[in-house]
Amino acid sequence: MPAAMFPHADSQLTINLDAILANWRRLDSLSPAQTATAAMVKANGYGLGAARVGTMLAAAGCRHFFVASLSEAIDLAAAFRDAGQNDAAIMILHGVQRGQEADFAAAGLVPVLNDLEQLARWRMWATKTGQKLPALLHFDTGMTRLGLDAAQTDWLINTPQALDGLDIRHIMSHLAAAEVQTDPTNQQQRDRFNAIRQFFPGLPASLANSAGCFLGSDYHFQMTRPGIALYGIHPAGRPGDGLQPVLGWRARIMQVRAAAAGDKVGYNGTVTLRRDSRIATIGVGYADGYRRQLGGKASVRIGSATAPVIGRVSMDSITVDVTDLTADDLATGRADLLHDAYDIHSMAIDAGTIGYELITQLGHRPARQYLGGPALCQPATP
Amino acid sequence: MPAAMFPHADSQLTINLDAILANWRRLDSLSPAQTATAAMVKANGYGLGAARVGTMLAAAGCRHFFVASLSEAIDLAAAFRDAGQNDAAIMILHGVQRGQEADFAAAGLVPVLNDLEQLARWRMWATKTGQKLPALLHFDTGMTRLGLDAAQTDWLINTPQALDGLDIRHIMSHLAAAEVQTDPTNQQQRDRFNAIRQFFPGLPASLANSAGCFLGSDYHFQMTRPGIALYGIHPAGRPGDGLQPVLGWRARIMQVRAAAAGDKVGYNGTVTLRRDSRIATIGVGYADGYRRQLGGKASVRIGSATAPVIGRVSMDSITVDVTDLTADDLATGRADLLHDAYDIHSMAIDAGTIGYELITQLGHRPARQYLGGPALCQPATP
Repeated sequence: MPAAMFPHADSQLTINLDAILANWRRLDSLSPAQTATAAMVKANGYGLGAARVGTMLAAAGCRHFFVASLSEAIDLAAAFRDAGQNDAAIMILHGVQRGQEADFAAAGLVPVLNDLEQLARWRMWATKTGQKLPALLHFDTGMTRLGLDAAQTDWLINTPQALDGLDIRHIMSHLAAAEVQTDPTNQQQRDRFNAIRQFFPGLPASLANSAGCFLGSDYHFQMTRPGIALYGIHPAGRPGDGLQPVLGWRARIMQVRAAAAGDKVGYNGTVTLRRDSRIATIGVGYADGYRRQLGGKASVRIGSATAPVIGRVSMDSITVDVTDLTADDLATGRADLLHDAYDIHSMAIDAGTIGYELITQLGHRPARQYLGGPALCQPATP
Repeated sequence: MPAAMFPHADSQLTINLDAILANWRRLDSLSPAQTATAAMVKANGYGLGAARVGTMLAAAGCRHFFVASLSEAIDLAAAFRDAGQNDAAIMILHGVQRGQEADFAAAGLVPVLNDLEQLARWRMWATKTGQKLPALLHFDTGMTRLGLDAAQTDWLINTPQALDGLDIRHIMSHLAAAEVQTDPTNQQQRDRFNAIRQFFPGLPASLANSAGCFLGSDYHFQMTRPGIALYGIHPAGRPGDGLQPVLGWRARIMQVRAAAAGDKVGYNGTVTLRRDSRIATIGVGYADGYRRQLGGKASVRIGSATAPVIGRVSMDSITVDVTDLTADDLATGRADLLHDAYDIHSMAIDAGTIGYELITQLGHRPARQYLGGPALCQPATP
């Protein structure tokens, strides 16, 4: 009975860990063998579960994981510990903030040092505790967001002893427009990064995000760090490039009811039915991450048919015109919110945003079902 | 030290339980004394925490709580049990779905029966188990979403024995446009509801959502069921009406850096600085629910000054032009994302949505701090 798919919740996300692994290997294959491929698992693994994704990739040989904040790092470290995985490095993009030094050092976390103040504090902590503390060093080359600015970079080039006492694992920068392959910003940032690199001989380097992985080997250096592509979403919204879709999303058909021509549907009656109709009410709404902007634009698949989402998206439900569907289709009891004719890119366009925002904003209410994963993973050479 | 406000996370939500209680009492005061005021705590209490809000309101005398799905009801029931609260009814708007009957009955949950199929199944369960099972009965009067449609309503009016064996606590309907006080739909729905009510004499009735509470006493019947207004957001976006703001949101200033005139900021360099500037990078992004559409529109308050959000919103951070701010302001170490000059209504408009979507889509990553609550609650007469 299909309803048993949703014993308590009204919608369910299906997250294919095998597809994430295949995507990680695909991205790894784009760069030279000696280039490490890290995994971005910040924002709870882009909304799909950092603990599940992280431990699965660690079991498969991934050794470098990035999160945004200390709180995320603590959660991921606990997941690795619970899984008996002790050899994965957790790097925190926001760096070590004031007052966090002891927590970082105690958990062996690796901050990305984004300015000289962070660098000085982390180095003082190393001196104080007599440890050589690990870190990445982030130079801004065009994002104007995080990383040493031009003046700080110059100062550090002229004051290399400021790094004494630290174990700088990589120097890094971040691309601002890598998904636009023809954007001259990419080459400018790469050239600036190379100009900085020459002052730090012997230090491994990292520049490429997901889109950077597709820019060619002169963007790969010693470590790439893909994120969105792991989760099956192409950073440029292109199909193909060897990425497998990861996410499925289905919801319960809660009710199918008759409505007459002239009836209005949903809040503020934004749709007036032109014919006698059958309307299915489906158990997903904007509180689940099914964006409000999708009303009147999106479609769902029910059985072998597709049906339009009409009227406004409610907090907990949507309404779908199923007048043309067969009883067999409706008897499946569920609607696929993502389907062949409506993938995550289509949904992002209709919602006026990007796939990144859609998946990181998935609500906590949908049930999560993981497919594949550890049992199917075979440890690979790192 | 302000940084200690965010020991591990980079942003923090402040949820004022006392304000929620004051709002519940304010809404309760709008209706006659004999009218019960329920609380909508679906979607995890509109994103602010159903367990905390529910147990607080139950301690204050609220006896009727609505959630959307069985999974939400199970969580809320556990919270009530943990708090030793045994006299609050949990009503499930989506009704009892196929296969959920035993779970509903075991936990004493009250389904809102939305169609005859649900009604028949729930009644069969009552017969099978020899219990008189509780329910609400939902008639659609203009939403075309959930509730008995016209033909089913007619059938039930002519077949009242179909309710035998059930304890119908309330009959209800739902307003489609109550926040527009002049919308004729409101009176039409009320009139239809009254026409249905006369066939079910003696059964208490419920029609008003938050906006309906403000429509006057002929919309209140025996129970109102406000949601959004509890959380300090006026359903019509109006200030005033005696509602207190509930939500605060602040984030860490992670870095303040120099940038030169001509530098571009953020992904795809959507902003070019016109002057030498100072840019603060703040630890909140769209994965936290700080919508991507806010880039270039929103402002934050830092110390005594406001500063514009420039460039694109990233997944984990935003960039703010703080060139004109004083060192004292920046030394506070944090930015208020909601402030006097930029409240949740302003944010919703800039994000192209409504406050409901903003708060139900708050990410799980921000730390939650609850102010007030049980210790300050004084049990009131229900």
